[in-house]
Amino acid sequence: MNLKKRITEMAKKAKTASRYMAQVSSFKKNVLLKEMAACLLKNKDLILRANKKDIVQAGRRGLPSAFLERLTLNEKRIKEMAESLIQISKLKDPVGGVIKAWARPNGLRIRKVRVPVGVIAIIYESRPNVTSDCIGLALKSGNSVILRGGREALNSNLAIFKTLKDVMIKNRIPEGAVSLLATADRSALDALLKQDAFIDLVMPRGGEGLIQRVMKLSRIPVIKHYKGICHVYVDEEADLDMAQDICFNAKVQRPGVCNAMESLLVHERVASRFLPQMLKRFKQAGVEIRADAFTKKIFRDVKRAKVSDYRTEYLNLILSVKVVKDLKEAIWHINHFGSHHSDAIVTDDAASAQRFLNEVDSACVYLNASTRFTDGYQFGLGAEIGISTDKLHARGPVGLEELTTYKYIVYGKGQIRT
Amino acid sequence: MNLKKRITEMAKKAKTASRYMAQVSSFKKNVLLKEMAACLLKNKDLILRANKKDIVQAGRRGLPSAFLERLTLNEKRIKEMAESLIQISKLKDPVGGVIKAWARPNGLRIRKVRVPVGVIAIIYESRPNVTSDCIGLALKSGNSVILRGGREALNSNLAIFKTLKDVMIKNRIPEGAVSLLATADRSALDALLKQDAFIDLVMPRGGEGLIQRVMKLSRIPVIKHYKGICHVYVDEEADLDMAQDICFNAKVQRPGVCNAMESLLVHERVASRFLPQMLKRFKQAGVEIRADAFTKKIFRDVKRAKVSDYRTEYLNLILSVKVVKDLKEAIWHINHFGSHHSDAIVTDDAASAQRFLNEVDSACVYLNASTRFTDGYQFGLGAEIGISTDKLHARGPVGLEELTTYKYIVYGKGQIRT
Repeated sequence: MNLKKRITEMAKKAKTASRYMAQVSSFKKNVLLKEMAACLLKNKDLILRANKKDIVQAGRRGLPSAFLERLTLNEKRIKEMAESLIQISKLKDPVGGVIKAWARPNGLRIRKVRVPVGVIAIIYESRPNVTSDCIGLALKSGNSVILRGGREALNSNLAIFKTLKDVMIKNRIPEGAVSLLATADRSALDALLKQDAFIDLVMPRGGEGLIQRVMKLSRIPVIKHYKGICHVYVDEEADLDMAQDICFNAKVQRPGVCNAMESLLVHERVASRFLPQMLKRFKQAGVEIRADAFTKKIFRDVKRAKVSDYRTEYLNLILSVKVVKDLKEAIWHINHFGSHHSDAIVTDDAASAQRFLNEVDSACVYLNASTRFTDGYQFGLGAEIGISTDKLHARGPVGLEELTTYKYIVYGKGQIRT
Repeated sequence: MNLKKRITEMAKKAKTASRYMAQVSSFKKNVLLKEMAACLLKNKDLILRANKKDIVQAGRRGLPSAFLERLTLNEKRIKEMAESLIQISKLKDPVGGVIKAWARPNGLRIRKVRVPVGVIAIIYESRPNVTSDCIGLALKSGNSVILRGGREALNSNLAIFKTLKDVMIKNRIPEGAVSLLATADRSALDALLKQDAFIDLVMPRGGEGLIQRVMKLSRIPVIKHYKGICHVYVDEEADLDMAQDICFNAKVQRPGVCNAMESLLVHERVASRFLPQMLKRFKQAGVEIRADAFTKKIFRDVKRAKVSDYRTEYLNLILSVKVVKDLKEAIWHINHFGSHHSDAIVTDDAASAQRFLNEVDSACVYLNASTRFTDGYQFGLGAEIGISTDKLHARGPVGLEELTTYKYIVYGKGQIRT
């Protein structure tokens, strides 16, 4: 069977299985999740051997160390994967939840009820742990899932996938409920993204190139975890000590993640009081500063920023800095240069805070707190597949609830329309 | 300025204006809506004259009478348009509504709050009243809107658009908040659908060709009002008198709309009791029947259905009929041949009802009621832009709430992540 046909078959089977998945009880799903966790641990040597193969191959191809680090599994990481499945088993099942219920004057009773989306395709780069997280979240939310992981992690993904799928097969879950598109052929992605007859949602997780490609090719609705160009704006009425701690935390605590600060904005009235100490502290922590002319006047030992710096997600110990005239300019800058992910204001002025929180068009807006809290666990929502920077369906953390949609169930007693 | 550039400018202005629109108070929006309604009535002669031009041109081009009927405005229709704006002014403003609010152990307070989507493009065929409905709904939900109506209604749309826009300009709403893409050039649509940098959502309303074209070309998320291939399934445990009334209502009361029944499914155990009388009643009402072999044995005076009949939205006095072996086949048939719009079961058996309501994968599922109730007003949700047959973001009636999304607002007191 050629690749395109094989992918169509896979998508079709996933759709058929999704009808079954939507009806599986919470109890059974939780049993499966716990059994999966146990099997991951049981098969750990097998998984680590497969991972070793991937690492050796990636090493030979000269891939960078950060890449190898993400690709590498060890006993601790497998334990974390298992733990994550247990956590998902403890989360509330969103399926069947009643969002709203009301009655009409003609006696019709209407319920708006949560139901699974159907078939979700997840496209991700070479992080093998994503394989088990996605299977766990899709299962719990009652969806079928088709996984397309990075080529470099193929052996690891196959070993994890096989371990979890065996649990499902043993428990008589239809085969199509979880699939792994395991081929190094890049045209597989194109074929997958044309399956809008069977796949309901595509979620790409990865670099800009991958996401642009998915957006261009997909006929299926896409929710994307795009860039995190997050800002902290230090207002003229900020508590500057608090601002220092928030900015330092947002930039330095874990610079390689999407909710880390990439750009610092400071009101011109406090710039000369705030920046010297702040930038010194950043320098000491090894942060490279790229700043505007105003900042450079206050603190000479920085590079000048180019306009492109304000559009860059460094994911690294680099920070762009800009002094702004006022709150209005800060809001404009964030909406214009940011990625609508997470942005914070530090201020003691209630009116400025309210304006910022209202007018900054981002998934998460913060008053006097670090942007690093944008995360399903930190929000108390549990595990997530990613952070949506899109505006439709899901915004911010994409957890179990965001993997569902709704339907209207209408109960009548023979009502007809007149 | 060439067309592509003009469209980019239009989209950009719409985005800028959307920042303003998101902050307009409910009071001001309602004042605007009422003023718009008054101006529609005041300008009715001007609008009717423009409409006359469109009708004359369409007549010359030999367009069918159903088309001309939809295109034609008269005093009554303009009154209805004005009335609809008044109705929208009375609906609850969704913007700013708190969907959920909670606190975290570290003291962070999180609010999930409704906000407008941003810029919505609406592409529709030649029904001039849609122009004012869309402007009203977009305004009330705090969005900017770009309208692309059918070429044949250009003069009518321009007259209505100008009337409503004048009210906005007079009230100092930014120009970009409402735009009409007024050109007969078909490539305008292609250029519009590439503006994903500025437009957040596209909603096509129209025939299958238009919708397929939008899906293929759009880089912007699409919510579509696609086909309504609605079913009524008469179960073996149905109250057959009730079933007759529901089926008759669903097919005949208004056959040209998306929530009318196109396909009747009957359990084989009641087929010979139910169908003869039912089909006779349909025949008397002028309904053409296209049926399977089983039905033809019971009631000879019908055409045989082709497989394609079960996939057809007739929007007319034609009905496909099929006798099914059991509930399972009925559910399979609806999920396989239907359009996931509205489907009903008539039964007195609670278990069968529950299974049907759970397993039929449609926006609206009915027990013992006519599918004709799928409608924003009938649901008590107010005016709508369409009925979504998609699964993401909005399903079923797309009203004010569905034209919003949400953001998370997080209130801190200096919290950082450890």
